[in-house]
Amino acid sequence: MKPINEIIKNKPIVGWLLFLSTIIVVFLLGLLASSIIERRAESVFVYTPQVAYGQFEPRNEVWGQNFPRQYQSYRKTADTTFRSKHQGSATIDMLEESPRMVVLWAGYAFSRDYNQSRGHANAVNDVRNTLRIGTPVDGKPSIQPNTCWTCKSPDVPRLMNEIGVAEFYKGTLESKGHEVVNAIGCGDCHDATTMNLRISRPALVEAFERQGLDITQSSHQEMRSLVCAQCHVEYYFNKKKVEGVQYLTFPWDNGMTVEAMEQYYDNIEFTDWTHSLSKAPMLKAQHPDYELYKLGTHASRGVSCADCHMPYMSEGGQKFTDHHVQSPLNNVANSCQVCHREETAKLITDVYERQDKLIENKYKLEEILVRAHVEAQKAWELGASEAQMAPILTDIRHAQWRWDYVAASHASAFHAPVESARIISGGMAIGQEARLKLSRLLASLGHNQEIPYPDIATKAKAQEFIGLDMDQLDQNRKRFLEEVLPAWIEKAEEREKTYETKQL
Amino acid sequence: MKPINEIIKNKPIVGWLLFLSTIIVVFLLGLLASSIIERRAESVFVYTPQVAYGQFEPRNEVWGQNFPRQYQSYRKTADTTFRSKHQGSATIDMLEESPRMVVLWAGYAFSRDYNQSRGHANAVNDVRNTLRIGTPVDGKPSIQPNTCWTCKSPDVPRLMNEIGVAEFYKGTLESKGHEVVNAIGCGDCHDATTMNLRISRPALVEAFERQGLDITQSSHQEMRSLVCAQCHVEYYFNKKKVEGVQYLTFPWDNGMTVEAMEQYYDNIEFTDWTHSLSKAPMLKAQHPDYELYKLGTHASRGVSCADCHMPYMSEGGQKFTDHHVQSPLNNVANSCQVCHREETAKLITDVYERQDKLIENKYKLEEILVRAHVEAQKAWELGASEAQMAPILTDIRHAQWRWDYVAASHASAFHAPVESARIISGGMAIGQEARLKLSRLLASLGHNQEIPYPDIATKAKAQEFIGLDMDQLDQNRKRFLEEVLPAWIEKAEEREKTYETKQL
Repeated sequence: MKPINEIIKNKPIVGWLLFLSTIIVVFLLGLLASSIIERRAESVFVYTPQVAYGQFEPRNEVWGQNFPRQYQSYRKTADTTFRSKHQGSATIDMLEESPRMVVLWAGYAFSRDYNQSRGHANAVNDVRNTLRIGTPVDGKPSIQPNTCWTCKSPDVPRLMNEIGVAEFYKGTLESKGHEVVNAIGCGDCHDATTMNLRISRPALVEAFERQGLDITQSSHQEMRSLVCAQCHVEYYFNKKKVEGVQYLTFPWDNGMTVEAMEQYYDNIEFTDWTHSLSKAPMLKAQHPDYELYKLGTHASRGVSCADCHMPYMSEGGQKFTDHHVQSPLNNVANSCQVCHREETAKLITDVYERQDKLIENKYKLEEILVRAHVEAQKAWELGASEAQMAPILTDIRHAQWRWDYVAASHASAFHAPVESARIISGGMAIGQEARLKLSRLLASLGHNQEIPYPDIATKAKAQEFIGLDMDQLDQNRKRFLEEVLPAWIEKAEEREKTYETKQL
Repeated sequence: MKPINEIIKNKPIVGWLLFLSTIIVVFLLGLLASSIIERRAESVFVYTPQVAYGQFEPRNEVWGQNFPRQYQSYRKTADTTFRSKHQGSATIDMLEESPRMVVLWAGYAFSRDYNQSRGHANAVNDVRNTLRIGTPVDGKPSIQPNTCWTCKSPDVPRLMNEIGVAEFYKGTLESKGHEVVNAIGCGDCHDATTMNLRISRPALVEAFERQGLDITQSSHQEMRSLVCAQCHVEYYFNKKKVEGVQYLTFPWDNGMTVEAMEQYYDNIEFTDWTHSLSKAPMLKAQHPDYELYKLGTHASRGVSCADCHMPYMSEGGQKFTDHHVQSPLNNVANSCQVCHREETAKLITDVYERQDKLIENKYKLEEILVRAHVEAQKAWELGASEAQMAPILTDIRHAQWRWDYVAASHASAFHAPVESARIISGGMAIGQEARLKLSRLLASLGHNQEIPYPDIATKAKAQEFIGLDMDQLDQNRKRFLEEVLPAWIEKAEEREKTYETKQL
């Protein structure tokens, strides 16, 4: 090849072309460099704290100043407009959906009031508004211990840090009503310094410790489920651990299946309440979401709670975790469709199918249990003895435990459809066994015919049937909300005014 | 650039390099061309028919001359060495696995003999060897009609073509024993000319026609399931369609769910047999594999039967369908792992989990049904009236129909675990309802205590309990196999000698 200067000498245009293209390339490189610098600057800006606060800062809006995107998405958990076929974030009166539940919980506060759970931002308000706390007015205590606050607020780790865990659980719920005011939020799951996921509630750590497991060794992906497992689990209040304290405890020592927990409760002869019709020593399942999820396909494939309920999203070129914790059915594109390449409508239909197939038999089991309670009541009326009733009441306890385990667990039909169906079938077999024993007992007591199914077509009828004075309860709630609650809020505001935060 | 000859003049080595590289490139191109020509020749060779035969050629080995790869893999269906946790291709005595079944089928031939189904190549032999055909010796007829042969052999389309469909079904099974001798094979699913998939059995076409559907419009992928659905379905023998003929019919006119078929049978007051203990008008579910598969995730995602049971394989550079129809658990790499990127052991564990969870409650339902039959028997003994028993026997019929629907369907726990669990739960509710009614009835007849569960710990004990003389049956079978069967085989060989095939 000829030397370049010779070529340019022959064809000067080549020189100009070379010059121009060099200019263009350098200009484009400049643009790229500027963009990189800009993004770097942005990323620094995104993570630049605006305000300094401690680990036990309970106010989500303070954390939100440093993490506006996460906070803005978290705020959406207040939304109550999404309703799927059976669940969602809307307020659904579950006792109206299935008035049979009123009878199943006769003698227990759930028969008064049980709504579909709403988003995290409503947690504290929903506790204040439920009839289950026993509307503490005129200086009367709540029927619930402070332990009930445990899962409701980042004020809880703050209080536990200030006064100790057992001291926090101590006393009845109204005594800390002015302390627990911020809804479930940032400090419940995050370390304030590193923003790493963090277990803030001792019950989960203690449950794993008793099994010889050290939860602090968990991977980040495991933590994306374990922070949820702090609350979304089956639990009970252990009155024997610390004198005068209802100590929050997970019944996992024999294993995490419905049978293992039943065995645990049977062994310690634990009873949540005595059924007011059948006198059966009942168990109330809480929401064993984590336990059932662990037995489903998604957990088996390493999918965490957050993968579906808090999928990644991006905004302004920034990828972050969507803190609008919600039903994936309201966000199929970012949850299901990350793995499943099917149309949204198809995926939703698939979920509904699983739900419908489970609910069909869940409802049948409810009817079986209603009948069992009513038949047991009749047997007592006709003079059945404790000895005659004992095995029957144990069956009722075990059958309803299985029903409640599935009914109380959010999305059991999706998290673990085969396991949930297995549990419901088990409940049916035991429940009908109780009724067979009752049938023979009733016949021996002179009553050999079907006990009529009570008229419990609506929640109101069912509540009347079990003898609840709902007018009185509603009136008390109104008084509580007007006379007691404002003082709680005022006191909390006064206290929070003294909190120092430093603008940076 | 300088002209090439000038460069070579200056550096002769360049010329030699150019020459050599041209030779190498041309040589490699020659190899490629030769390979292409070879593959083309091979592909022509692969599909070159060796022998000419008609559509109704029943001998699989004749088809096999033209399609040796497919035939060789088909031959493997004779294998009986694979046993999974609950199923596989091995001979498993299902009555020994669950002697309860003997009682559930009391009065019906299944209580004598019921083995896990083996591969297609064993189909004809398994019919000859089962006690269910009633061992026709001394000129006595079989207890089964010829309709039972329908799914066993490519001799069936041959005969239907020769004598007509209704005429084929006519008569008892021993009358066509010498005609039906080749096991399920090529002609059952393939067109002899085009090798396209083809429906050879009229019952499937007729069932779809009654629903206004034209099965000939199905896609190839649909056909990869529909050829299986010719046999792997629920069916019954309609005695009212053609005088004196038990006409094979699918009960799909109201739909393809367990409830829709029950309604169909109830409407026409169809009964497979009357239970010898409870006198209940029973239904025997056949193997509703296609119907249950259609309600599962795989069908919902467009996966056909053949995709898992006959996945593609390659041999000698040739890709073809593996005709070793078998459990995918014995071929996870080519079936499951085409879509699922999990380890084999993990995938198998997942299937076993679904099976275990279903079987647990299927066994419970079996016990409930055994008790119901025994209690009903007692009620008759104590003088119960037809009117008193009628609703109870209907419940027993419906409960056992649900159990059998799931039990008889191969791999129900995998094909549709949620639907299968739903069905078992439904059966439990109805079965226990029957027992409650029985309990009240028995009490009113003076018997107000539990009827002891019979000692049916083994198949032999269970068969003794229902009054079967197994020695006599086994002896008859021995005589049938020695005295009758050889004549069938000889006659068939004579006949087949007259078949003409042309070597091409």
